Amino acid sequence: MNVASGPRRHRHSIATVALGGTLGEKLAAAAAAGFDGVELFEPDLIAAPLTPEEVRRRLADLGLVLELYQPLRDIEAVPPEVFQRKLRLVSAKFDLMQRLGARMALLCSNVSAQAIDDDDLAAEQLAAVADEAQRRGLTVAYEALAWGAHVSDYVHSWEVVKRAGHPALGICLDSFHILARGTSLAGITAIPPDKLFILQLADAPRLRMDELQWSRHYRCFPGQGAFDLGSFLRRVLAAGYAGPLSLEIFNDIFRQADPFRTAVDGRRSLLWLEERADASAPSDSGPGAAWAPVSRLPAGASDLRGFAFVELDAPPETTKGLTRLLTGLGLRRTGVHRSKPVELWEASEARILVNSGRRSVPAHTRFSVTAVGLDVAVATPVARRAAALRTPPVPRHRNWDEADLVGLEAPGGVEIFLCEDGSPWRGDFDPCTDEYPFSATARLAGIDHVAFAQPLTLFNESVLFYRSLLGLVPLESQEVASPNGLIRSQALAGGGLAGGALAGGALVGAAGGETVRFVINVPVLGGGRAESHPVQHVAIRSDDIVETARAVSAQGLSVLPVPGNYYEDLAARLGLDAASLETYRRYGILYDEDSAGRVFRQFYVTAPQSGVLFEIVDRTPGYAGYGAANALVRMAAQETAPR
Amino acid sequence: MNVASGPRRHRHSIATVALGGTLGEKLAAAAAAGFDGVELFEPDLIAAPLTPEEVRRRLADLGLVLELYQPLRDIEAVPPEVFQRKLRLVSAKFDLMQRLGARMALLCSNVSAQAIDDDDLAAEQLAAVADEAQRRGLTVAYEALAWGAHVSDYVHSWEVVKRAGHPALGICLDSFHILARGTSLAGITAIPPDKLFILQLADAPRLRMDELQWSRHYRCFPGQGAFDLGSFLRRVLAAGYAGPLSLEIFNDIFRQADPFRTAVDGRRSLLWLEERADASAPSDSGPGAAWAPVSRLPAGASDLRGFAFVELDAPPETTKGLTRLLTGLGLRRTGVHRSKPVELWEASEARILVNSGRRSVPAHTRFSVTAVGLDVAVATPVARRAAALRTPPVPRHRNWDEADLVGLEAPGGVEIFLCEDGSPWRGDFDPCTDEYPFSATARLAGIDHVAFAQPLTLFNESVLFYRSLLGLVPLESQEVASPNGLIRSQALAGGGLAGGALAGGALVGAAGGETVRFVINVPVLGGGRAESHPVQHVAIRSDDIVETARAVSAQGLSVLPVPGNYYEDLAARLGLDAASLETYRRYGILYDEDSAGRVFRQFYVTAPQSGVLFEIVDRTPGYAGYGAANALVRMAAQETAPR
Repeated sequence: MNVASGPRRHRHSIATVALGGTLGEKLAAAAAAGFDGVELFEPDLIAAPLTPEEVRRRLADLGLVLELYQPLRDIEAVPPEVFQRKLRLVSAKFDLMQRLGARMALLCSNVSAQAIDDDDLAAEQLAAVADEAQRRGLTVAYEALAWGAHVSDYVHSWEVVKRAGHPALGICLDSFHILARGTSLAGITAIPPDKLFILQLADAPRLRMDELQWSRHYRCFPGQGAFDLGSFLRRVLAAGYAGPLSLEIFNDIFRQADPFRTAVDGRRSLLWLEERADASAPSDSGPGAAWAPVSRLPAGASDLRGFAFVELDAPPETTKGLTRLLTGLGLRRTGVHRSKPVELWEASEARILVNSGRRSVPAHTRFSVTAVGLDVAVATPVARRAAALRTPPVPRHRNWDEADLVGLEAPGGVEIFLCEDGSPWRGDFDPCTDEYPFSATARLAGIDHVAFAQPLTLFNESVLFYRSLLGLVPLESQEVASPNGLIRSQALAGGGLAGGALAGGALVGAAGGETVRFVINVPVLGGGRAESHPVQHVAIRSDDIVETARAVSAQGLSVLPVPGNYYEDLAARLGLDAASLETYRRYGILYDEDSAGRVFRQFYVTAPQSGVLFEIVDRTPGYAGYGAANALVRMAAQETAPR
Repeated sequence: MNVASGPRRHRHSIATVALGGTLGEKLAAAAAAGFDGVELFEPDLIAAPLTPEEVRRRLADLGLVLELYQPLRDIEAVPPEVFQRKLRLVSAKFDLMQRLGARMALLCSNVSAQAIDDDDLAAEQLAAVADEAQRRGLTVAYEALAWGAHVSDYVHSWEVVKRAGHPALGICLDSFHILARGTSLAGITAIPPDKLFILQLADAPRLRMDELQWSRHYRCFPGQGAFDLGSFLRRVLAAGYAGPLSLEIFNDIFRQADPFRTAVDGRRSLLWLEERADASAPSDSGPGAAWAPVSRLPAGASDLRGFAFVELDAPPETTKGLTRLLTGLGLRRTGVHRSKPVELWEASEARILVNSGRRSVPAHTRFSVTAVGLDVAVATPVARRAAALRTPPVPRHRNWDEADLVGLEAPGGVEIFLCEDGSPWRGDFDPCTDEYPFSATARLAGIDHVAFAQPLTLFNESVLFYRSLLGLVPLESQEVASPNGLIRSQALAGGGLAGGALAGGALVGAAGGETVRFVINVPVLGGGRAESHPVQHVAIRSDDIVETARAVSAQGLSVLPVPGNYYEDLAARLGLDAASLETYRRYGILYDEDSAGRVFRQFYVTAPQSGVLFEIVDRTPGYAGYGAANALVRMAAQETAPR
């Protein structure tokens, strides 16, 4: 192995079952996302109006390799008379594969009650299947399903393949089956590389359910779940595997999503995963020492300094209300853009751009968050990384003398702008010298986080976007029962003290010193009111929330009312002193503390009919959450508050 | 117990957590559905803007009893110093309960790592809690959660309660925890009735997952899942339980649905369940012999004869296309309504009403199924039953001399009309004497089934509606991967040979001789294209599908094209003879056979841009399914067919 020859290129592949739409759409989407090949899931072929020859031509036209035809099921370890019927079926499918131009078939370990617990029988029958394959120039990859009747892990499937000793028979490794069961990875390097026929990759959230159901509904792309796929991939590659990295994902959401969007998401996950394999700790056995880097991703930002600004769309008829709200919060208008109807509002490091020139605001809201600026040391690497990750750049009109910002379109249409150190973007604003009738005592410090309400179909994609592009690290997700249904809330954080996260490390417990935080909220089921009336949050950090609350209250802003029951429960549970409790009650401040006694306090400012809630938060350094315990109260208050 | 005194009335109750919306909406919905009381889920109170006193008044105004305040968690079997803190919390909650007017608190078995496996300690601490309760005139019901750290079934929780020996302490039985774990019911009658403090009822689909997750997301109302709740309830009532029947349901769909609709659904489930308890086999122990009937439901239809008609809305500009389609299928126009723009089309027992006077058709379709007529011996009992089940009647304009049909609104807005033996509804049509240019050789026999595509939120309600009102029996549901996402397909059948089903019996395997069949199709996730472009089916039974296909083909109708790949797979799997295969291929006939070799064949006729597919089916007597194996092919063909 020549380490100096640069990254090894593994072909990228995706199973058609991972994508929604018709077979034609699936193939076109895979090609458009830059995949080198596909696994063809048999039901997709059966349901397609294309003949096998037409599929072959379509693949060739699209530049796609047919990596795998799948799956053959319940074939091996059966009584001889049953096997004869199975062999006829397999032979017919091998004939079909030749017409398709497929080279390899996937054969899953038998799950039926008919299966006999006899490795020699299984090996003998698999060898007979492999004979049929070899006669046609095909190969067969044997996969241990986690719920296989007798063969349910790769150690066992390799044992059977070894006994069969057939050149056309090897094994398929599927990360889901191995990681879901927690099978040791140590046996992988014991398998000769030329017997590692194909590697299927899938991540999954950590769920406690039957493996079959978990596998069939909840798999997701690498980086979207809880498995350590970086170490897994490193181990497999260290064993000498040279075939494609193939995504085999069964996911209810992907099935109903736009296949072109899903395919890009999948491709992004493989690019990210290769980088993780490079970064993972070397394997504790095997030839891992001679690691040849596999990543083809530019490194991206070296750090994230924090939020440069949050930009709101505010149609002209709403700017007055928004302006009053910002003023009441203690922000001041410090600049007016020289060529666009955009104002800059500031308080300390909290900066809000108010744009009255766009018209992208949904009809039922009055204003919405459309862009976020992030401070970075150098923006160009991020732009390069974004392009490699197939992130669409944001077209941006500007005058010749105005700052050029790198802009990226995040899932849901929000724009992320990268603002370099010394970037002249603030120079595009003429300074204002407005007078304010009150003193600035609001103690605001900066933007704490931005929360986006998104449709369910964008959940996985959003997590991977922020993780792969900005190096943010997902925290444990929360489920919150709102009056409109159950909401899944996923926070991602990075930058600052957690700067190491930019290398993609797993954040076991967030440090609390992160400088960039996003929260993605989706309904756990699609449809419903939560999806049709999304609410975004802009959370501004205060270094004295009571002081801020007093100032805001003095300005006559409307604070989201918090039920008295909430404070009675707080008193019963936590034993706060009566004076604090009374203060919190007066100003509608919600309170949470973590197991280490670190405190999080927050209150919300409402704007009638607005799709944006402004939130003031105050966190003890190290508190890593977002007051999830208070979310139900907040959501119910939103429902019952006057609008 | 006085058997002759007529049905025992148990109060009906529902937990606020079972309903979406705000607390105010939940309470109003429970009252509107006729519940006698509610369980108050603590987070619903905490998030509500109502004071405890206001909640108490609201309950009184609505005529609702507060049956239970829930839940107290992780209280018992802890180290003494921890318990002192717990007891202070519990005392505060008991004070709150007094203000609410609650009488009983639910205390769940400890699930925390802090819990000590010591029944005596648990009993001692529970007795101390019960002391606090008793001092305030309250009681405490101890519930074994299936995932409790040490106490996880009712036999054990009863053992602890027995040891505590406190008059204010009893147990809560929750059907989910007992039936999910398959705990024997035999111990229930061993518990003195005065210690059976509260009965919580929930059904659930049979899933293989962690009980916590199963319980928190997938519970449903009795009759919507797979548990035998009739026998369970009979057992508990036979043990002498005299308290409320209380629905405690955690369900993601209900959480995002209209609470008023969900509450009616829940109330319907309890009425149905009481009837099932009456009908269940007597308990094998305990005082079951002295059974006092509890049902308050009128018996309903004595039988269902079959489909009287299917009514389609067809705006005037679409009737020509529909007419050509019906003619091509071999139906003839036999009547024109005397006072409405409705035509009657017939072929043997298959009758279609074409209504060009309504305008309820969704904009993106050309026509839709809006009503179904069912033949019954006598309609009045069904109307009485429907009213008892809170089913809205359908207002129907008619002239004084026209037939009066009992009409019921099914979930999704479809109208179900009950057509009595000898009902004069056909007399409202003037006979037609149209000439047809071809002979009627289509061999049509009648309506086989009607399939409705519905939003996810109506799934459970639909199942219970057809089950409770018409006595149809749900078959095992199927999941089908369509190009637009995963679809759950639930068939319900009854009438005919399965007439016994009207008593509500469980249909283990359908007999295949049912005369009324409906299929409910919903996307497994809400939102998405499957929900926004619903497709209904009207399936007409043929007694010779090949003959029908020839006739339809000769009429130039467009048959849904079936991919050649489908027939190649059929040949490989089933070894059909070449001639049959060729015939099926020519006419686009799909083929399925069950394990007993019984055959189901079907083909679809398409109408451009229509929301209705006409399907011709031919089933060997006894074949009970709907060709689920072919559904993917059909759905993909729908997507790729020219429109």
